[in-house]
Amino acid sequence: MRDIPHPDPDQLQLPAILHALSDPVRLHIVASLGEIEEVACGGLEVGVSKSTLSHHLKVLRDAGLTWTRTVGVQRLVSLRRDDLESRFPGLLSCVLSHTDEHEADGRLIAGL
Amino acid sequence: MRDIPHPDPDQLQLPAILHALSDPVRLHIVASLGEIEEVACGGLEVGVSKSTLSHHLKVLRDAGLTWTRTVGVQRLVSLRRDDLESRFPGLLSCVLSHTDEHEADGRLIAGL
Repeated sequence: MRDIPHPDPDQLQLPAILHALSDPVRLHIVASLGEIEEVACGGLEVGVSKSTLSHHLKVLRDAGLTWTRTVGVQRLVSLRRDDLESRFPGLLSCVLSHTDEHEADGRLIAGL
Repeated sequence: MRDIPHPDPDQLQLPAILHALSDPVRLHIVASLGEIEEVACGGLEVGVSKSTLSHHLKVLRDAGLTWTRTVGVQRLVSLRRDDLESRFPGLLSCVLSHTDEHEADGRLIAGL
């Protein structure tokens, strides 16, 4: 999982976490990842271009919200639940509990 | 309190709230306001210029995190606790519970 740079757990910072969650598309992605274990980046349906999606996924990864790992030609992304819960207990679940009204346009993971 | 534009409670949006909280200075301000009822803007000691402070206060106000009212020549600012709690129950207290380590440089309200 170290082929792509990720911050260590003790490097996670609250402002960066909140910034990563402050964009509707990124909030959508995190809310969707909250329902599954891991998804191929290509399976995320967020209505933005591939390059824009890559940018959002990098912001989430750099803030420490997600893991991204490469398997073959695919990139798989998942939430860093344990690290986030350890560093900021309750924060992620609290934010996600308020995302329902922002998810009105449906699930974002293809096939779910 | 209507001499300065503020969003109505039902206009508060989660991404805007999180964006407003994603800056260390604004997070500092909100954490400090969490300890008091109301403070004159001039009483906020956040180590930034007056114009930068005005910008941060506008971002907080526009997101619906704070009230700003004019009394004489002073602007007084306070948290919109009730509106925030009604719209996003538990969110503010959850975020503020994690700000302690980001408040290591001390209180920001002059005289407290």
